[in-house]
Amino acid sequence: MNPKHPAETLTTMSELVLPNDTNTLGNLMGGRLMHWMDIAAAMAAMKHCGCPVVTASADNISFENPVRLGNVVTIEAKVTRAFNSSMEVYIKVQGEDLPNNFRYLSNEAYMTFVSLDPNSKPRKVPEIIPQTEDEQHRFEGALRRRQLRLILSGKMKPEEATELKKLFVEELIQK
Amino acid sequence: MNPKHPAETLTTMSELVLPNDTNTLGNLMGGRLMHWMDIAAAMAAMKHCGCPVVTASADNISFENPVRLGNVVTIEAKVTRAFNSSMEVYIKVQGEDLPNNFRYLSNEAYMTFVSLDPNSKPRKVPEIIPQTEDEQHRFEGALRRRQLRLILSGKMKPEEATELKKLFVEELIQK
Amino acid sequence: MNPKHPAETLTTMSELVLPNDTNTLGNLMGGRLMHWMDIAAAMAAMKHCGCPVVTASADNISFENPVRLGNVVTIEAKVTRAFNSSMEVYIKVQGEDLPNNFRYLSNEAYMTFVSLDPNSKPRKVPEIIPQTEDEQHRFEGALRRRQLRLILSGKMKPEEATELKKLFVEELIQK
Amino acid sequence: MNPKHPAETLTTMSELVLPNDTNTLGNLMGGRLMHWMDIAAAMAAMKHCGCPVVTASADNISFENPVRLGNVVTIEAKVTRAFNSSMEVYIKVQGEDLPNNFRYLSNEAYMTFVSLDPNSKPRKVPEIIPQTEDEQHRFEGALRRRQLRLILSGKMKPEEATELKKLFVEELIQK
Amino acid sequence: MNPKHPAETLTTMSELVLPNDTNTLGNLMGGRLMHWMDIAAAMAAMKHCGCPVVTASADNISFENPVRLGNVVTIEAKVTRAFNSSMEVYIKVQGEDLPNNFRYLSNEAYMTFVSLDPNSKPRKVPEIIPQTEDEQHRFEGALRRRQLRLILSGKMKPEEATELKKLFVEELIQK
Amino acid sequence: MNPKHPAETLTTMSELVLPNDTNTLGNLMGGRLMHWMDIAAAMAAMKHCGCPVVTASADNISFENPVRLGNVVTIEAKVTRAFNSSMEVYIKVQGEDLPNNFRYLSNEAYMTFVSLDPNSKPRKVPEIIPQTEDEQHRFEGALRRRQLRLILSGKMKPEEATELKKLFVEELIQK
Repeated sequence: MNPKHPAETLTTMSELVLPNDTNTLGNLMGGRLMHWMDIAAAMAAMKHCGCPVVTASADNISFENPVRLGNVVTIEAKVTRAFNSSMEVYIKVQGEDLPNNFRYLSNEAYMTFVSLDPNSKPRKVPEIIPQTEDEQHRFEGALRRRQLRLILSGKMKPEEATELKKLFVEELIQK
Repeated sequence: MNPKHPAETLTTMSELVLPNDTNTLGNLMGGRLMHWMDIAAAMAAMKHCGCPVVTASADNISFENPVRLGNVVTIEAKVTRAFNSSMEVYIKVQGEDLPNNFRYLSNEAYMTFVSLDPNSKPRKVPEIIPQTEDEQHRFEGALRRRQLRLILSGKMKPEEATELKKLFVEELIQK
Repeated sequence: MNPKHPAETLTTMSELVLPNDTNTLGNLMGGRLMHWMDIAAAMAAMKHCGCPVVTASADNISFENPVRLGNVVTIEAKVTRAFNSSMEVYIKVQGEDLPNNFRYLSNEAYMTFVSLDPNSKPRKVPEIIPQTEDEQHRFEGALRRRQLRLILSGKMKPEEATELKKLFVEELIQK
Repeated sequence: MNPKHPAETLTTMSELVLPNDTNTLGNLMGGRLMHWMDIAAAMAAMKHCGCPVVTASADNISFENPVRLGNVVTIEAKVTRAFNSSMEVYIKVQGEDLPNNFRYLSNEAYMTFVSLDPNSKPRKVPEIIPQTEDEQHRFEGALRRRQLRLILSGKMKPEEATELKKLFVEELIQK
Repeated sequence: MNPKHPAETLTTMSELVLPNDTNTLGNLMGGRLMHWMDIAAAMAAMKHCGCPVVTASADNISFENPVRLGNVVTIEAKVTRAFNSSMEVYIKVQGEDLPNNFRYLSNEAYMTFVSLDPNSKPRKVPEIIPQTEDEQHRFEGALRRRQLRLILSGKMKPEEATELKKLFVEELIQK
Repeated sequence: MNPKHPAETLTTMSELVLPNDTNTLGNLMGGRLMHWMDIAAAMAAMKHCGCPVVTASADNISFENPVRLGNVVTIEAKVTRAFNSSMEVYIKVQGEDLPNNFRYLSNEAYMTFVSLDPNSKPRKVPEIIPQTEDEQHRFEGALRRRQLRLILSGKMKPEEATELKKLFVEELIQK
């Protein structure tokens, strides 16, 4: 299993916001967007491991700007780091109002996926070797985000989160 | 605007997992589930405020148990606390394998919604008065979760999160 | 096969009426509603028998109040009586206009389902033991509704419908 | 408003049964079929009245033969009679297993629709003049079916159902 | 394998244009229409060969008249000619504005399908014997359209297209 | 209206082939793919003109390789040339079997779109200035493809197609 670069996993997906995707005020519903984000991120993870995956977790998502009916949503997903049989994927969502030529950040998120063998058991995945500075930064942050995830889901005690502890105040917030 | 009890906002939604909702191994895709969770939670929020809402954020979600094709997903959503024009909703997702009479927890999550007036501007919502012990517990935790949300989305500095700070180690993990 | 109570089969399903569910006047289309009713009722039947089911029949449905775009539809389904390998399910549909805090009955209906074994052959189901007065009432009426169903589908001659005959005038209409 | 012939309202709709339309045994779900029947019947009613319609009722439907994944469903709908602002539509559903060149009756049903003006108020519709013997037969039966509908929905007392009374035993069952 | 007449393969499909089928100006999106055309044509091809089929090609389609939200689309598909394991299907699409009793041609197209055996290998299909003058005309044109298809997809050199060559100027344009 | 480069209109869309997108042999249905191609191409056209568009035509499409259930479809769309109020878009579709790390060309196509003003009337669009050699090649070919389109839809007489005539034999086939 040769290591891969994040760029090899890059997946881009554009969707047109149709009436059924919106609430009665014509705004894209958050759940529909999370559905698309999950599909884009799962494709990135499958590109990395070359096998079926299941979503293991979605980190905190904050929807900054409402996306309007008729706008285009563009989702970019890229694996940031691999852990044994799981992968963290970074997702960037942008909205675009084409008539007004206005592109804006909708939100960013991290999701994790587990790679499965044909019996639905976890399966080892290749390593990720970051290349750009931004990829290196996300690669390092993955360790802290992972500890926070484990704490928030009750699988790790805060005192065990060594990475997180020393960096909590300064670094967690820089995502 | 009279305050309401969480029970008045309770929304239950059952969905049958159909082929299109699953990946090639027959497991419910996380994104489809988040889509359903968002709709259930939005209905709970609308019951509380009586007007259209948009999703503002989704907290960390950890998918514990895969849900299989043909299983039934039951989602319960209930408003835990109101903040000015926003509401936090607690969501509990259970899967059920009816032929084997087996019911299991799939995951729990918190989402927040903003209430909108007809011009899509935020609009004040009634207060929530918790009644049961569990509701009281979630009502109190809402403050800490809110601070964590603000920190994670870069809108609050960690040192300002007074609620969170003193409780981080002991209480955050108890959700 | 231990008998069950109707309450053990209760299934609640809430759906938000989205643009694609409505006609050009913004009213929920009857067919979409029947689709949801069938899914909710099938889940109630599966809870009772613990195996796959197929819809055998739908009784007369009268749509009293149009349900509007953006309203919430809440469907409650509960098995009323079991007959060998088939089950009758009672379905109650309510609409809710949340901004106006107005909840109304949309319609009520009965559907029947047949329980299937893995070879798609009919399979015996447990009995139903009604508990509340309302459940007892529907349990008894199930016999008459069944005879009417058989007559209307040409499988029983009216003169054989002993239950129905003596009660037709007085009781049929009380559903 | 010139009267119309049933043939002028004939609507034919074919659908391929796809995975999402079926239960875990690969049979078309009854609710999906009712959804298609409602759309086909609504189109027939719109051809008659030339305006938007809403479903007012669906008569007893008995699903005789399961329709399999990959089969083709063909629905024929034709207005049988007009009553002031409402229309009764006859619907015939056939399944077809193309590889085995086997066509079979799935079910027959009657639905009624109300014609609406732009304010969603009921609106008068043209008369129907039956032409073939079969159309004449359904035209006459429409009166009895209408009385049964009104009785079953509690809007008419059985003793007022003059048409139905004298014919109940002999004719109701011949649909 | 007995030859068949085009009429034996005739498939009619009506669809109501719903909000999600349209762009922000309320016009049916071309892609949704092509999706329906493909399903109708595939059903016609399956009626001819009695086995699963895959789409091999779609000829030039010109969308003449926009179809509006709420209109009815009626698609007629009929096999025009069989070639070994493939079939050409003629598709005629009409729109209908029922309130205005206005029916118009939306577009016409040809698609080809390949018949498959259970191993997904091409499988011989019966011949087509045209009956009406129009069918005879399309049957003959099928040879020229096939040569054009092969040239446009780079599978035939123009100089080999004997049928096409002598008729190009006079006949191609009469479709 | 400043001219644009094709690269500014590039749209990439990835879709996971789900059960409902496939026929009974597990192959992506051509119509579903054309639906996605149309959406991707419409987004490219909207990026160019900055206003709503309708599909005017789809050129001959030949489906070379079946795309399997669970594979990923990646569609790239780019405007090749603008004509007054219409735009030609080049679409390239690739399938990808991730577990086998196998990427293959599914098909290529051209579609044209008309730009619309708020009254649904055609509206002038900016010019396209090709940059790469490939873009230049498609830009020039657009004239011939346009003449072929007009001839095939009966809007131009073959003898008027000067561009096409002198190049038919040598160049048409090179797409």
